[in-house]
Amino acid sequence: MSGKIPRSPDEDYTRDMAQVRQKYIQEKTGVELRNVGSYSFDPAILKGNIENFFGVSQVPIGLAGPLLVNGEHARGEFYVPLATTEGTLVASYNRGMKLVRESGGVKTTVTDDAMQRAPVFIFDDARAAREFGTWIDLNFTDIKANAEKSTSIGKLRNIEKYQMGKIMFLRFNFTTGDAAGQNMVGKATYFACQWIMQRNQNVRRHALSGNIDTDKKHSLMNTLHSRGKRVTAEVVIPRDLLHDTVRMYPEHAIQMRWVATMGSFMAGSNNNGQHSANGITALFIATGQDVANVAESSSALVYAELTPEMDYYYSITIPSLIVAAYGGGTGLATQRECMEMLGCAGKGNAAKFAEIVAATVICGELSLGAAIMAGDWVSSHEKMGRNR
Amino acid sequence: MSGKIPRSPDEDYTRDMAQVRQKYIQEKTGVELRNVGSYSFDPAILKGNIENFFGVSQVPIGLAGPLLVNGEHARGEFYVPLATTEGTLVASYNRGMKLVRESGGVKTTVTDDAMQRAPVFIFDDARAAREFGTWIDLNFTDIKANAEKSTSIGKLRNIEKYQMGKIMFLRFNFTTGDAAGQNMVGKATYFACQWIMQRNQNVRRHALSGNIDTDKKHSLMNTLHSRGKRVTAEVVIPRDLLHDTVRMYPEHAIQMRWVATMGSFMAGSNNNGQHSANGITALFIATGQDVANVAESSSALVYAELTPEMDYYYSITIPSLIVAAYGGGTGLATQRECMEMLGCAGKGNAAKFAEIVAATVICGELSLGAAIMAGDWVSSHEKMGRNR
Amino acid sequence: MSGKIPRSPDEDYTRDMAQVRQKYIQEKTGVELRNVGSYSFDPAILKGNIENFFGVSQVPIGLAGPLLVNGEHARGEFYVPLATTEGTLVASYNRGMKLVRESGGVKTTVTDDAMQRAPVFIFDDARAAREFGTWIDLNFTDIKANAEKSTSIGKLRNIEKYQMGKIMFLRFNFTTGDAAGQNMVGKATYFACQWIMQRNQNVRRHALSGNIDTDKKHSLMNTLHSRGKRVTAEVVIPRDLLHDTVRMYPEHAIQMRWVATMGSFMAGSNNNGQHSANGITALFIATGQDVANVAESSSALVYAELTPEMDYYYSITIPSLIVAAYGGGTGLATQRECMEMLGCAGKGNAAKFAEIVAATVICGELSLGAAIMAGDWVSSHEKMGRNR
Amino acid sequence: MSGKIPRSPDEDYTRDMAQVRQKYIQEKTGVELRNVGSYSFDPAILKGNIENFFGVSQVPIGLAGPLLVNGEHARGEFYVPLATTEGTLVASYNRGMKLVRESGGVKTTVTDDAMQRAPVFIFDDARAAREFGTWIDLNFTDIKANAEKSTSIGKLRNIEKYQMGKIMFLRFNFTTGDAAGQNMVGKATYFACQWIMQRNQNVRRHALSGNIDTDKKHSLMNTLHSRGKRVTAEVVIPRDLLHDTVRMYPEHAIQMRWVATMGSFMAGSNNNGQHSANGITALFIATGQDVANVAESSSALVYAELTPEMDYYYSITIPSLIVAAYGGGTGLATQRECMEMLGCAGKGNAAKFAEIVAATVICGELSLGAAIMAGDWVSSHEKMGRNR
Repeated sequence: MSGKIPRSPDEDYTRDMAQVRQKYIQEKTGVELRNVGSYSFDPAILKGNIENFFGVSQVPIGLAGPLLVNGEHARGEFYVPLATTEGTLVASYNRGMKLVRESGGVKTTVTDDAMQRAPVFIFDDARAAREFGTWIDLNFTDIKANAEKSTSIGKLRNIEKYQMGKIMFLRFNFTTGDAAGQNMVGKATYFACQWIMQRNQNVRRHALSGNIDTDKKHSLMNTLHSRGKRVTAEVVIPRDLLHDTVRMYPEHAIQMRWVATMGSFMAGSNNNGQHSANGITALFIATGQDVANVAESSSALVYAELTPEMDYYYSITIPSLIVAAYGGGTGLATQRECMEMLGCAGKGNAAKFAEIVAATVICGELSLGAAIMAGDWVSSHEKMGRNR
Repeated sequence: MSGKIPRSPDEDYTRDMAQVRQKYIQEKTGVELRNVGSYSFDPAILKGNIENFFGVSQVPIGLAGPLLVNGEHARGEFYVPLATTEGTLVASYNRGMKLVRESGGVKTTVTDDAMQRAPVFIFDDARAAREFGTWIDLNFTDIKANAEKSTSIGKLRNIEKYQMGKIMFLRFNFTTGDAAGQNMVGKATYFACQWIMQRNQNVRRHALSGNIDTDKKHSLMNTLHSRGKRVTAEVVIPRDLLHDTVRMYPEHAIQMRWVATMGSFMAGSNNNGQHSANGITALFIATGQDVANVAESSSALVYAELTPEMDYYYSITIPSLIVAAYGGGTGLATQRECMEMLGCAGKGNAAKFAEIVAATVICGELSLGAAIMAGDWVSSHEKMGRNR
Repeated sequence: MSGKIPRSPDEDYTRDMAQVRQKYIQEKTGVELRNVGSYSFDPAILKGNIENFFGVSQVPIGLAGPLLVNGEHARGEFYVPLATTEGTLVASYNRGMKLVRESGGVKTTVTDDAMQRAPVFIFDDARAAREFGTWIDLNFTDIKANAEKSTSIGKLRNIEKYQMGKIMFLRFNFTTGDAAGQNMVGKATYFACQWIMQRNQNVRRHALSGNIDTDKKHSLMNTLHSRGKRVTAEVVIPRDLLHDTVRMYPEHAIQMRWVATMGSFMAGSNNNGQHSANGITALFIATGQDVANVAESSSALVYAELTPEMDYYYSITIPSLIVAAYGGGTGLATQRECMEMLGCAGKGNAAKFAEIVAATVICGELSLGAAIMAGDWVSSHEKMGRNR
Repeated sequence: MSGKIPRSPDEDYTRDMAQVRQKYIQEKTGVELRNVGSYSFDPAILKGNIENFFGVSQVPIGLAGPLLVNGEHARGEFYVPLATTEGTLVASYNRGMKLVRESGGVKTTVTDDAMQRAPVFIFDDARAAREFGTWIDLNFTDIKANAEKSTSIGKLRNIEKYQMGKIMFLRFNFTTGDAAGQNMVGKATYFACQWIMQRNQNVRRHALSGNIDTDKKHSLMNTLHSRGKRVTAEVVIPRDLLHDTVRMYPEHAIQMRWVATMGSFMAGSNNNGQHSANGITALFIATGQDVANVAESSSALVYAELTPEMDYYYSITIPSLIVAAYGGGTGLATQRECMEMLGCAGKGNAAKFAEIVAATVICGELSLGAAIMAGDWVSSHEKMGRNR
């Protein structure tokens, strides 16, 4: 039954070719793609974003907001598009946004920003690997020059070195402007490695990734050292407002956060918060971010305190939030409209978008936290979501 | 500038209400949602899936396949819809599917299956917490009966106990049929906890989640104990075929896998493979799975061996793959068509779908692994993807 | 220069043979072992504890206490021998014991108790590995019978199963009475595996340990599932006493513990406390425990709370404390005397000893915590310890 | 029954005072300390090493060797003193040393060397914490000058920064010559922090340790970034020698190492080797190292390969080996003799000693690995050790 998926070398990104493939699918599987085949844009825009295009997934988007942000890049009220199929998600984030608004808004701060590629080099012995490390330091200027040949935007900031026996893992850190930059830094590192391999005769084997990047995978490395944006959202909920909302005073809420933190610690989790992945994923799908990065970007660090005024200080730090303001899927039809809704379309807006993501995430944390604490978590799912 | 998002208590899931909100957005942000507002279904179907619906994200889907699967539930050739905006992703998975087809297909096996909710109970001291653990064991039958009152499908399999000081974290394991089951088990556990709280007078504080579930978050807990499906894909690539493809013999490929595994080990990663999140995310978006579960489902364990015939045995185990064959977004317009393409729409198909996901993932691993080893990883991105 | 270490097949454990080896060392290295050669016991007692005996390390022991324990097994005041060469350690623990005494003592509780050996079995494919898991469950009675053939004390409690692809890791849990039991369970598991290998034809390869035990190594596995004793120590420090001692109220102390916990979380540590390893090591050396187990036993989970009376509740849980009341080095000359000091020499005392260890550890935590918080940590080292 | 441990402010480190305390113990516990009270040195040497001294633990030492080392600092044959009470340990390491000797010896390399103290600073918000990070960089020279005021040996190499929300964790890295240096760097960091607190008005709270050091605790932080010495041992076992010894060819041995590595990976272990803690602990007790550091120093990374000649390349990297050549307990009576046996007593020898530790560890790994693979692990314990 096997067959070859139809392709057109010259004009593959057309409605016609999409239909050819739809028919091919119908022939092979018997399924008529009435909805998948319905889309509002010219497939020509998809070149560089996908291969064998045959239709779209229509993911419903709900509106949450206004979200009040006191960021360094994002300032004011934002209406947040959340693309999801999970009932109660939008409502929950929306409820959190109300609570935050009534508390004076979210303060957001990007504290670090870099994208990595981590090649690996294998030597005859540990001494050769160590000498290579020294050699890398001495030749940093040349390595940087070679890396940056392939990109006008990416800048090689520094190279971290992690040695295990005769293996040297390097971790190249680039700034990548308003692009997410994985491909950019992959290419730049490739050129740097080409130069290294030509000049250094001691390398026995080499690969462009030794898995400590760690691309599309969670790692403590990235939680510690950041990947993409490291961004914090902070909010202070007035004591009485908290109690009105969740029938709980800050002291109790803080204690429950520590209990949950110990649960996360003992479970070996990458996140002592609650469901940051929900908001991040919904925003990523809506705005054309690389959604697979949820693997890394779902890591989060929550910290809460009682303020001197006895109010509830709450913060979340997302240590490896990978976002772009242009490139990738951000320029596609619906995705660009959603980026525009946030005032984040195009260059100069990556940090602003990162702040909005973090601000959104903290609203969802507060909302679910409130629900769990107030004991109505199940019942709110009951009302709004299907019983799955 | 703040305002209230328009809602209609009675008829909120209509094209009209979506347009009202689109206009509201345009008024607030100046953005006209031409593409977001274009969708092919009746919003009435979205009830229970989203709130404040105002349009869709059109995520392009590419076709990969045929994928040859020798599963226990999935058997034969499948055409796989991958929704993504990342150039080269579909091509890379497709290339891996070809390699796997020429190798005789992927063997897939679901080895465990359960969904969790993990409530926490706090006591006066560690002794009381320990006695509570004993009490839970003694009362398991009643707890199970109360948990299962709220669901005809979910069955409470067992309760794990993790004590830290005076805190007892329980982890309820349910089978959930062909649903993903997070809400189902949340509700069932809620009813079980209600019963527990009425009967046991020693609990001082309680919350429905103590964060060891760990829902929407990676954890070693779930890598060890599974969450959703635990599924393995295995393939044997003939020696010469591997060499023709990547100019490398199995011995070398296996060694490079160990190097990468040590990179993952040292980086504290949840995955010693390469980019399982890519295929999982693309399939999840296409088929209406809960994409935020990529946080957990992106964990993966890769193991390779030289066979006695000197061929390349390669396997990947996804320990916490959360999928559904019905419920959630799987029944929506485009999503259901994609599930139908795979013959996975509706009850009885969750394990089949899990096998197809795992089979898809292994193809992507082999393809990217081949690219990295053959040194053409960057150049393939160059040709097909934009330079981001 | 190489030579063969002198041995006497028949009478190797004598003062004479020790001297022969001392002379051999002097000949080879020029070092005269005046102090190493000085010991107070008959080497005959060392059979089964060491090979090539030639002398002793004299590790100084300091006295701390009295330690007031309200355990289930240890009750009353104890004088604790701490063998260490680190200045301030004994003084610090002693200071903590005073604080705890003034607070009414430590409550200690053993909440779990098991020792493991974790063999690994490799199959043709994941399905065969999964079927093996079922086979293990079905044959548990026979496996248990075979395991227990080799020991009158060890009892096989249950077998955990962790599958990765075609590999099945089993984790045998034994109760081992008052022995630490690593060798006992190693032998018992060996006999069980012999039986398994004879009966099950599907195993392709097998090893007695697949490294998930994890013996002499930290692991989250053991933090979650216990190894040896899981023991908690709890204390309530009156508000004013805490303030008198560290010039800090409980609220502040609790907040600093959470900050430190986040430090541990972010660092990927196995311990959110401070220096449990110090007390454990010193007690282990003094009492003849297997000191290498500090690798596992140094894991610790700290949790603190404000009591309703506004006092400072503080607890530490040691999840994998490996101790023995007899066997190993506990019966040797000085070691037995130290066990007797604690009323823990011989069978029936393992849980009591575990409680004393935990009670000691919590005193050290409180003392160092107080020092760090009160800012005199460095200065106390200055006064008592050398400046290293 | 409580009482005060006798002390003499002026002449506490005397045989008389030790006897006074022995009598006190006898009075309180009924135990006569015949052996504990027997030691061969003048207690006056203990000042700065212990408080409330009342006797010694006599830990038996066995001899292993000769150990053939091809290090950069340690060269030639060494006779290794191993202080332990665990039967078969010395024999097992000795057997490994023979195998290594026959293979031409161990190559050892120290690849990094630093000691840390990690203070924590809390601010009003994340922005203030971030600005503080910049301020630290700008003031590095002054901070360094202030840190180094308190020590003639310790040099502040660099300061790492890890931000979580409004909390900034700093990690001060010092070189400490031939001392282990924990106290040295604690004091130096204290002085640096005093200066920081005087100059920077934005810090709201501060503690000398925020637990990311991570002192006396395992952490992935230290596995990645080293603590103390990072040292690798490498050996090549000829193919036939390996087979003669363990009836297994290198290919098989390597595969079993990967299986064990996956076991470690899945268990969340800090070590994919076997029992490095055994050799390290035994050497530490014999030579007066701070044995509690086994918590950190037991972390290990094993990597093996087939050489082009089809021999067995095996390596172990100990990323956080904390050792001293002087200071601490290394100068005490028996301890100094053992350091002298290894030619490591006194300044200039810390790296040499680290190499000997790593060389010893690899012998134990090979020996136990061989035993497990050859299936005689249990039986060798049977013959030599007691059945515990």
